[in-house]
Amino acid sequence: MRITVVGTGMVGQAVAGRLDELGHDVTVGTRDVDASLARIDPTDGSAFGTWAAAHPDVRVARFADAAADADVVVNATSGLVSLDALDEVGADALAGTVLMDLSNPLDFSRGFPPTLFVKDTDSLGEQIQAAFPEARVVKTLNTLTAELMVRPDQLAGDHTVFVGGDDPAAKQVVVDLLQSMGHTDVMDLGDITSSRGAEMFLPLWLRMMQSLGTGMFNVKVVREP
Amino acid sequence: MRITVVGTGMVGQAVAGRLDELGHDVTVGTRDVDASLARIDPTDGSAFGTWAAAHPDVRVARFADAAADADVVVNATSGLVSLDALDEVGADALAGTVLMDLSNPLDFSRGFPPTLFVKDTDSLGEQIQAAFPEARVVKTLNTLTAELMVRPDQLAGDHTVFVGGDDPAAKQVVVDLLQSMGHTDVMDLGDITSSRGAEMFLPLWLRMMQSLGTGMFNVKVVREP
Repeated sequence: MRITVVGTGMVGQAVAGRLDELGHDVTVGTRDVDASLARIDPTDGSAFGTWAAAHPDVRVARFADAAADADVVVNATSGLVSLDALDEVGADALAGTVLMDLSNPLDFSRGFPPTLFVKDTDSLGEQIQAAFPEARVVKTLNTLTAELMVRPDQLAGDHTVFVGGDDPAAKQVVVDLLQSMGHTDVMDLGDITSSRGAEMFLPLWLRMMQSLGTGMFNVKVVREP
Repeated sequence: MRITVVGTGMVGQAVAGRLDELGHDVTVGTRDVDASLARIDPTDGSAFGTWAAAHPDVRVARFADAAADADVVVNATSGLVSLDALDEVGADALAGTVLMDLSNPLDFSRGFPPTLFVKDTDSLGEQIQAAFPEARVVKTLNTLTAELMVRPDQLAGDHTVFVGGDDPAAKQVVVDLLQSMGHTDVMDLGDITSSRGAEMFLPLWLRMMQSLGTGMFNVKVVREP
């Protein structure tokens, strides 16, 4: 499939790299191509330019040019900038397109742990669906760390990821992509309002990360025998 | 141990019954003993009087008389009434006492699913600790259904419960109680501010319950091998 990943950070790189490896035609969208290729991540010293050089089959394009022909668009931006970035991608490009929304509404302005800038009676997933009513938004993968989003077999046992969205066919496209990346337990939470629950999981996730000293974990939904 | 369970609903009955079975000296606290013994639950027709008759070793007492000598107090009330109920139990009775807080700040005034009346920058666990600064509050078991709180071995595999609180010795008392009820994976989330994460899990829990058609599930935290 033609897949456009919006965002050049850790999540964008992980998802774009894995989809490229799986044989998809992948474009990474960014605000300013030259600036992104020159940028060094302040938190870990990694450089998007280095990543891009190691993935020669992945195109890098301005937001406005990135998604015109995409079958699937992946929102891999920080929640605070998601709506702006998708605005630049453009409502026309998103119309009719499956939009996998991986973002979380994290607000770090009060320090760590972050709070959520939308929650409980609304969610970022819903805000994105409302802003782009013709996009087929599916909330998914926001509940685990980037490395596990794309290579789930790194834990001691299988674990659960969620999908939520208003368009059943779009959810099936996403479920198929998740399974192709190795996810064996995908739970459908219903419509896009389920983004509230998926996003409000983050404060618990962050506390678990602090307790475990790593983000390399996930939850498995354990059912009755 | 002498344990007082505050609340006569489904959670209170499950916890009090199990602790009685495990040999503890159990009192159930309620606002009005006669009214509680006569009350029929409108949701499922169950009667606290029937439950009390089947548990003759469990004392039923007014809030104000229920916890004077308790080693552990369990808050098994609905979140909306927790602070009022604990006020009636009394700050003196709670001073120095381990207070297991099982409540969730669920607000059903907008219908189902409920919203949370405190979240993100505060939590009900913290509000209870602030209202009773001499109590040793431990948030726990609010993330799963009553039957599984006290008999966790009903699922297809082990699963995780959480503790959070400011007093390490109080947390150890709670961990021991949880293990005696059958919990094999108890994760310490840190101080009482971790109640934010544990309580904000509820919207996701409620969506999972809707998807699965049952509350008989829990999550297992899956770590690296």
